Amino acid sequence: MTYSPVDLSQKLALFSEQWTPKIVAQMNDYHFKVVKIQGDFVWHTHPETDEVFLVLDGAMRIDFRDGRVDLRAGQLYVVPRGVEHKPYAARECALLLVEPAGTVNTGDAASGPTAPNDVWI
Amino acid sequence: MTYSPVDLSQKLALFSEQWTPKIVAQMNDYHFKVVKIQGDFVWHTHPETDEVFLVLDGAMRIDFRDGRVDLRAGQLYVVPRGVEHKPYAARECALLLVEPAGTVNTGDAASGPTAPNDVWI
Repeated sequence: MTYSPVDLSQKLALFSEQWTPKIVAQMNDYHFKVVKIQGDFVWHTHPETDEVFLVLDGAMRIDFRDGRVDLRAGQLYVVPRGVEHKPYAARECALLLVEPAGTVNTGDAASGPTAPNDVWI
Repeated sequence: MTYSPVDLSQKLALFSEQWTPKIVAQMNDYHFKVVKIQGDFVWHTHPETDEVFLVLDGAMRIDFRDGRVDLRAGQLYVVPRGVEHKPYAARECALLLVEPAGTVNTGDAASGPTAPNDVWI
């Protein structure tokens, strides 16, 4: 039997909307999600978990209250739990996110473009 | 303050030995590791955890007792816990592994090229 891998570019080609993470794989109780982002997101925190950003295509910035990290394709960053952050991309950027199943994209933000956290693609 | 991302190509350029995963990031109690592989590994199982293989450069195959999955750069596969597998690469292939901290590369294999599971790069 030949099993099928998850092709990240192929998954990204299936949708165009931004800021809506799609689950592509599950490892134990963690989800791997692809997402396209552009512009400014809301400031938020995930009090319960670290969150991994791995850039697949393009470039982005994560702002913190005390600084920033710039990421381009092939680079990753772990935002520690409880650290307020705001993703930003000047042009569309494609990411792989790794975080516990059920993590909400807007974290603890009182308002913002909250996306469903259970959509597979 | 400007924080530094983890650059996967840069990390891979720091070593040449094969089958020796190096930790590049930690998310909660999980490690992200880069590794270079070539040739055949030993058959083994991780009874306690799923394991993610994401190919960064090159191509590889994971053999199972009932089949196989072929992976190239930009593709990932989740080997389910308890499923016996054997990685193989005809030419050198660079991977990102995601698995719980402390996972041993040879899993439950009685013998084989067990590498340290706590080396950061």
